[in-house]
Amino acid sequence: MASAGRIRAGVIGLGSMGLGMARSMAGRGIEVAGFDLNAAATAELAASGGRAAASAADALRDADAALIVVVNAAQAESVLFGTGAAARAMKPGGVIVASPTMAPDDARRLAGEAEAAGLFYLDAPISGGAAKAAEGELTVMASGSPEAFARARPVLDAVAAKVYELGDSPGVGASFKMVNQLLAGVHIAAACEAIAFAAKLGLDLTKVYEVITGSAGNSWMFENRVPHILDGDYGPRSAVAIFTKDLGIVSDIGRREKFPLPVAATALQMFLMTAAAGMERDDDASVARMLAGLTGVRLPEKSHED
Amino acid sequence: MASAGRIRAGVIGLGSMGLGMARSMAGRGIEVAGFDLNAAATAELAASGGRAAASAADALRDADAALIVVVNAAQAESVLFGTGAAARAMKPGGVIVASPTMAPDDARRLAGEAEAAGLFYLDAPISGGAAKAAEGELTVMASGSPEAFARARPVLDAVAAKVYELGDSPGVGASFKMVNQLLAGVHIAAACEAIAFAAKLGLDLTKVYEVITGSAGNSWMFENRVPHILDGDYGPRSAVAIFTKDLGIVSDIGRREKFPLPVAATALQMFLMTAAAGMERDDDASVARMLAGLTGVRLPEKSHED
Repeated sequence: MASAGRIRAGVIGLGSMGLGMARSMAGRGIEVAGFDLNAAATAELAASGGRAAASAADALRDADAALIVVVNAAQAESVLFGTGAAARAMKPGGVIVASPTMAPDDARRLAGEAEAAGLFYLDAPISGGAAKAAEGELTVMASGSPEAFARARPVLDAVAAKVYELGDSPGVGASFKMVNQLLAGVHIAAACEAIAFAAKLGLDLTKVYEVITGSAGNSWMFENRVPHILDGDYGPRSAVAIFTKDLGIVSDIGRREKFPLPVAATALQMFLMTAAAGMERDDDASVARMLAGLTGVRLPEKSHED
Repeated sequence: MASAGRIRAGVIGLGSMGLGMARSMAGRGIEVAGFDLNAAATAELAASGGRAAASAADALRDADAALIVVVNAAQAESVLFGTGAAARAMKPGGVIVASPTMAPDDARRLAGEAEAAGLFYLDAPISGGAAKAAEGELTVMASGSPEAFARARPVLDAVAAKVYELGDSPGVGASFKMVNQLLAGVHIAAACEAIAFAAKLGLDLTKVYEVITGSAGNSWMFENRVPHILDGDYGPRSAVAIFTKDLGIVSDIGRREKFPLPVAATALQMFLMTAAAGMERDDDASVARMLAGLTGVRLPEKSHED
């Protein structure tokens, strides 16, 4: 039973991000319950200081804060306000901290539904990947009312190294995340295109990595993803499917806003080609493998000791 | 008259890069002559310790090293081996240090012509921009024979903070530069697309810069070019025309090698649209202005005090 004053948090969605966030909170004295449709993930939480809930509503029962770490806005809306209506199980005046990458309009609609249910809503997309999630060092791009921020503070402190406070309107956090994902997706596709092209030109790829990371052609993604290609290791740290989804959302918003995004649209096609070639669940650096496969270029292979 | 043992260098092409390189050499005790079709540029060299040559051949007369800082391979070939044949004026056994971005095949052909003329050839594309050129702190991506490197060493030491030695075959330096320019061009186009899109979404662009430069969407070019957009200052630090040229070369090589480069091809189209809209001589961050003009989005304007 929770001691008086101890924060209760429920986490919906226990993939590598959600599980890392749940563990970070449990490790900092927050009472955590979690639910995922994948029972193995829920069991993993139970093994590391959290409570394995039997349903989303059970995870959010009497929660001060609900961390929503599902794939998209539709899942978030369904679990919170659809069948099961897990949001209703929360403590009145609790805060929903919504992390999925979603369109700003979706974030605004969810915030409205939360308000109608007597809850606060923080539009709070996350960035940093599974490793940072495990360490409680995510970056959060958040917007919402001062009350929503105040109520979310203990859980933000537990999961994030950096919280950007981007204003008091839901939808702004989502918009910043869109802009970040547009760039991140383009940079991964460009890194893969450049490395495969370098292989075609017969260059020493390790040397290419050294020169480019010290030159004006560098990007955070080039620096982070190209080592996967050099190791021939396409085990998913972040999967191709994440960027078909996120650049898909970017593309949808561009169409809705009548705003052309030629570079992002092309990068999306590269991820779709890679998914179509059977690599949807593999690391997003697989775009390089897709190009190598098309063109007959050889990229490094994983050494057998691995 | 040169003292015995003093190195003589001739510089062909005195744009901001070539002039900066010539001054760096003059400042380090190298005897420098320079030539540019633009007489004003040649006069600027004379005002800062170099000799204003009357022709390319005059600039290279008895030179130990020729630094070729013209726009492309065709200009380099014409000035060195075409009418005028300036290379013939050099000291026998001198070294040609060729900096234009060019196709690897062009670098190999020029190296062959140099060898036939009894000269050495260093394939030595540069990176870093006008400011680094002025400080003698360029990055050079070089390949060539050990003899070519040895003879070029004094001038490389004078103009560069970092020399990547990429092998003994001409064409390798050019290939590395291609890969760098592919990435740099895509990253500029993506930065401009992302910032114009952020403006469309109504975001605070200064905040976008702060968040993205601290996130996974960052690139060297985003960090370097977006301030031009925030200042509304499109005075050319590096012009749109550089990337229509360099991504054009990348695109040519892709076609020759039968290697698809969808992201780079799209970025090239963005620079071409910007050039077509009358901004060819403006800063390459003008891609954002082109998109803003198309879409009716407002970007920051230059303040009147500037």
